[in-house]
Amino acid sequence: MRHFSVELEELNQKLLQMGGLVESAIHRSVRSLIEQDRALAEAVIRDEPQINQIEIEIDGLATRLLALRQPVARDLRLLTAALKINTDLERIGDLAVHVAERSLSLMHHPLVKPMTDIPKMASLVQSMLLKCLDAFVQGDADLAHSVLLSDDEVDRLRDAVYGELLQIMQRDPTVLTAAIDLLFVARNLERIGDHATNIAEDVVFLVKGIDVRHHAKQGEAL
Amino acid sequence: MRHFSVELEELNQKLLQMGGLVESAIHRSVRSLIEQDRALAEAVIRDEPQINQIEIEIDGLATRLLALRQPVARDLRLLTAALKINTDLERIGDLAVHVAERSLSLMHHPLVKPMTDIPKMASLVQSMLLKCLDAFVQGDADLAHSVLLSDDEVDRLRDAVYGELLQIMQRDPTVLTAAIDLLFVARNLERIGDHATNIAEDVVFLVKGIDVRHHAKQGEAL
Repeated sequence: MRHFSVELEELNQKLLQMGGLVESAIHRSVRSLIEQDRALAEAVIRDEPQINQIEIEIDGLATRLLALRQPVARDLRLLTAALKINTDLERIGDLAVHVAERSLSLMHHPLVKPMTDIPKMASLVQSMLLKCLDAFVQGDADLAHSVLLSDDEVDRLRDAVYGELLQIMQRDPTVLTAAIDLLFVARNLERIGDHATNIAEDVVFLVKGIDVRHHAKQGEAL
Repeated sequence: MRHFSVELEELNQKLLQMGGLVESAIHRSVRSLIEQDRALAEAVIRDEPQINQIEIEIDGLATRLLALRQPVARDLRLLTAALKINTDLERIGDLAVHVAERSLSLMHHPLVKPMTDIPKMASLVQSMLLKCLDAFVQGDADLAHSVLLSDDEVDRLRDAVYGELLQIMQRDPTVLTAAIDLLFVARNLERIGDHATNIAEDVVFLVKGIDVRHHAKQGEAL
């Protein structure tokens, strides 16, 4: 039987691999939207089964380790955190696919607004995701905490996108369906930020044993 | 030390209690919307911390049982399923709060469409939730499977709501913000259906040891 630490390292590596795929999916789906690049959106949709496959592998590995190794204290928290983070990463992958699908739906439509806040939202949530995965690997609770603070900025950008789209829709009802697609893109990016926040909360719990969930959910109105 | 079976029963009871609270939150948030009843929406928002509290208790209990009892086979699957179902229930509670918030935002606005499909969606996802919780308690994989089949009907109703709202928005731009609120209500109900589907998949895995995730995610485009 291999050392437990080797198996935990394998689990970490798989989570990071999944994190990398998911981060690339966000990046490509938003670039596809901005640059009206059909191939990029199709690639995101085509690659999703790979993310789903790793999700199942991570679940299997974490559950097997729970059963065989009967861990306690931090190792137990690590395995339950891995199960939760795994679920959040898979949902983020789904959300990137939703963005790619909206991008395809918008492909032959002239862009309805100068695309500034949506790319900003995308960069921000990608950076939140990278930070919380870094925090997970390095056991860095402060870094995880910094992700929690970004949530307000995501909400601010979402409000800006919504306000601008609403004005555009009121001026020109012919762009309604395109504007609604973009509303949902903003909503999906916001939810990616929520999942990154969930992961950051799990990391704080993992490192400090303190549950920081349900502390700042007020901004989630939309 | 108490019998393990007693502790598992306590876990089951807590999950059912949480399921009941969440189901009531969906019911009241949609009734509040239909009947323009402010007090009902406010009650949903006020009661959410109770759901969050039980989520933390269930996580703590399941994690403690994993550590102390070192379960294998079905008991292990039961505890990891409990952790996942717990997360899904909490998210459903959040979504019911989002519906309640939309309901408040629509409170002084004349209803923009005859409310037929939204209540139908709400009834359907409530019934999916009840069925998958029943299936969990009774270890009934067939009942859980029946929930997976309802997902297409949820998507059909969502498309009907979207189509109707889009027509209304094109005819009358003054109802844009109200119609967008309703679009998001439909989206939230759809996501409640997705979470019920997740729970049903976990129940099938629990009972049969077969992973049925990622088999029918094509309908999730919106």
